[in-house]
Amino acid sequence: MNMNKKAVIILSGGMDSTTLLYKLIKDGFEVFAVSFDYGQRHKIELQKASETCAKLHIDHRIVDLKSITGLISNSALTGDIDVPEGHYEAENMKLTVVPNRNMIMASIAIGYAVNIEADTLALGVHVGDHAIYPDCREEFIEKLNAVSMVANYRPVTIYAPFLSVDKGDIAMIGGRMDVDYSMTHTCYKGEEIPCGKCGACQERAEAFAKANLVDPLIK
Amino acid sequence: MNMNKKAVIILSGGMDSTTLLYKLIKDGFEVFAVSFDYGQRHKIELQKASETCAKLHIDHRIVDLKSITGLISNSALTGDIDVPEGHYEAENMKLTVVPNRNMIMASIAIGYAVNIEADTLALGVHVGDHAIYPDCREEFIEKLNAVSMVANYRPVTIYAPFLSVDKGDIAMIGGRMDVDYSMTHTCYKGEEIPCGKCGACQERAEAFAKANLVDPLIK
Repeated sequence: MNMNKKAVIILSGGMDSTTLLYKLIKDGFEVFAVSFDYGQRHKIELQKASETCAKLHIDHRIVDLKSITGLISNSALTGDIDVPEGHYEAENMKLTVVPNRNMIMASIAIGYAVNIEADTLALGVHVGDHAIYPDCREEFIEKLNAVSMVANYRPVTIYAPFLSVDKGDIAMIGGRMDVDYSMTHTCYKGEEIPCGKCGACQERAEAFAKANLVDPLIK
Repeated sequence: MNMNKKAVIILSGGMDSTTLLYKLIKDGFEVFAVSFDYGQRHKIELQKASETCAKLHIDHRIVDLKSITGLISNSALTGDIDVPEGHYEAENMKLTVVPNRNMIMASIAIGYAVNIEADTLALGVHVGDHAIYPDCREEFIEKLNAVSMVANYRPVTIYAPFLSVDKGDIAMIGGRMDVDYSMTHTCYKGEEIPCGKCGACQERAEAFAKANLVDPLIK
């Protein structure tokens, strides 16, 4: 099938999806970005997503999902539980899982893609996400793609090019494209300067180290 | 795997899901109903869903999805386009397709199921839906189930027992369980008394005829 070069991207405002946005533009896609406000503590990432899109002249929508957080709120990322400190793989990081979050966001983004006749939905998931989040694993992406191909008159292909690389590789790829990482956010605690303690901050620091880059957020 | 007897049902307030709700209760499930307000014209169905749940003492949540209709609004069921008259299979009924609607609702309901530790998500889709709605076909349900089984730490099984029966069969099944069809709504135009002209009303009338029942909504 001949696919068009129109893509929807789920843009969290973090490093991974921001790097993917730059890659899509470089690869010649007409890109439509969508972000989700699901009541996350780290709301600053939505603002970063907007800044990046403004800079790159990309259409950007923020979808308000706060009306569903009451239903699925059993998570430290939305609820009143404290964000755990420590490394991602640790058992207590499971507290940061929002039930079915990626499938919910992908479903809405697929509907958006069908509506604007885009053939591709791009997701920035990567290897480092797999340990903790079932809905970031290859198996999930594969089956999400399978259902996305039959759910509508217009099939939408899931494109997740970082699925088998890690965050350090992403930083390297981004470095080569001059991604402006000052316009990304990572910390789960929602602080603009990385707290350095939560799993997300630790992973970000390791990524910059691996890519031999300096994190512009750390003065 | 030993599944528990807790089920989430997507309850539209129409005949099909209402009949399924009665069936789940009869089969011994502890049921949690969820309905979606996606800006549909036929809002009265939400009210009917509430009435049925109140009568049957079932926990009922209505999820406000109006914030996403701007993204996916290319449909006569939510937009400003006139609802087409005529039979369901007719080409112009495609205007009533809301992009990816069932996958969006199912994704949220799966998140809800995970949160309350329910192993089953029940959907009232049936044969008559297949012609028009890709996201009511067997293939879709199968692939939706496949992704639902891997998207979370807790697998959620999609249960769609009406997938190979038609609306007449559903009315017959419901008749045997004394389903109160006065508390259901069908008409796409949102009129309490069936308009008799839209595809949904025509199908409802045929179902009652096939089941040899009188529609309590028609005085």
